[in-house]
Amino acid sequence: MTEQIPDRPPEPDERATEARIAELEDKWLRAVADLDNARKRMDRDAERVRAEERARSVREWLPVLDNLDLALRHADADPKSVIEGVRAVRDQAVSLLERLGYARHDEAGVPFDPGLHEAVGTVPAQGAAPGTVAEVVRPGYGEGDRQLRPATVLVATAPE
Amino acid sequence: MTEQIPDRPPEPDERATEARIAELEDKWLRAVADLDNARKRMDRDAERVRAEERARSVREWLPVLDNLDLALRHADADPKSVIEGVRAVRDQAVSLLERLGYARHDEAGVPFDPGLHEAVGTVPAQGAAPGTVAEVVRPGYGEGDRQLRPATVLVATAPE
Repeated sequence: MTEQIPDRPPEPDERATEARIAELEDKWLRAVADLDNARKRMDRDAERVRAEERARSVREWLPVLDNLDLALRHADADPKSVIEGVRAVRDQAVSLLERLGYARHDEAGVPFDPGLHEAVGTVPAQGAAPGTVAEVVRPGYGEGDRQLRPATVLVATAPE
Repeated sequence: MTEQIPDRPPEPDERATEARIAELEDKWLRAVADLDNARKRMDRDAERVRAEERARSVREWLPVLDNLDLALRHADADPKSVIEGVRAVRDQAVSLLERLGYARHDEAGVPFDPGLHEAVGTVPAQGAAPGTVAEVVRPGYGEGDRQLRPATVLVATAPE
């Protein structure tokens, strides 16, 4: 910005106007700088929040892995009890998911629900009502906004 | 703000100054409003980022749980092969942790390192050099800033 040299000393009114302009310029530049800093902080914060959440989430799974390790440690002794132990670990993992807000859906016999189930086939089923879930191929977790995935199922049809 | 009625028509110079003041006021108010919006967005984003990261992280563990389910599905058939399957699931979980940046530390025989190990006891060890890890009681994951927990170990002492 080139400075203009006034050809006469400024009047009191002009001085007040100049002061007002300087004040507004200062306020504007400060607000722009604050905005810039806020945006940078926002980016840093998002990365930090993400990393913290990642670490917290991973830490939740360590007890599951620890118990899997413990179950395998006695694998040579008694295979049957190992399987019992592993079943308990699986239940622990399912409970963890439920606590995190992602309940397991693996029930057969319930009516097919497109919000919870994804049909990958049909199967003629004696006894089962047509349109119900005949078999859960892969369990689903969560529902609505908090659905990780629907359950993959076979749907019962009337027997031929 | 009360408007001042000029007692004479404004000169061209005055009109330019008034326009400059109006322009600066406008810029300032816009910057302040942007800053306010950015702060509100920041709060909303932090919650969204957290929820997204949580869901993403949980989703990573589903294949581990699926394979645990599959291993148990054949439990009645052959316990030995179940154990092989479960071992593979454990290795899959360890690989996942490593991929997320948390390498497993479960090696015996290495020198005790206070950054990686937490000693919970000592054991007189034939053959092992005093001050090395004689036994890993519970594996550790990650290191430095990205450590989830140190490995819990027994440290070798000279045999009595």
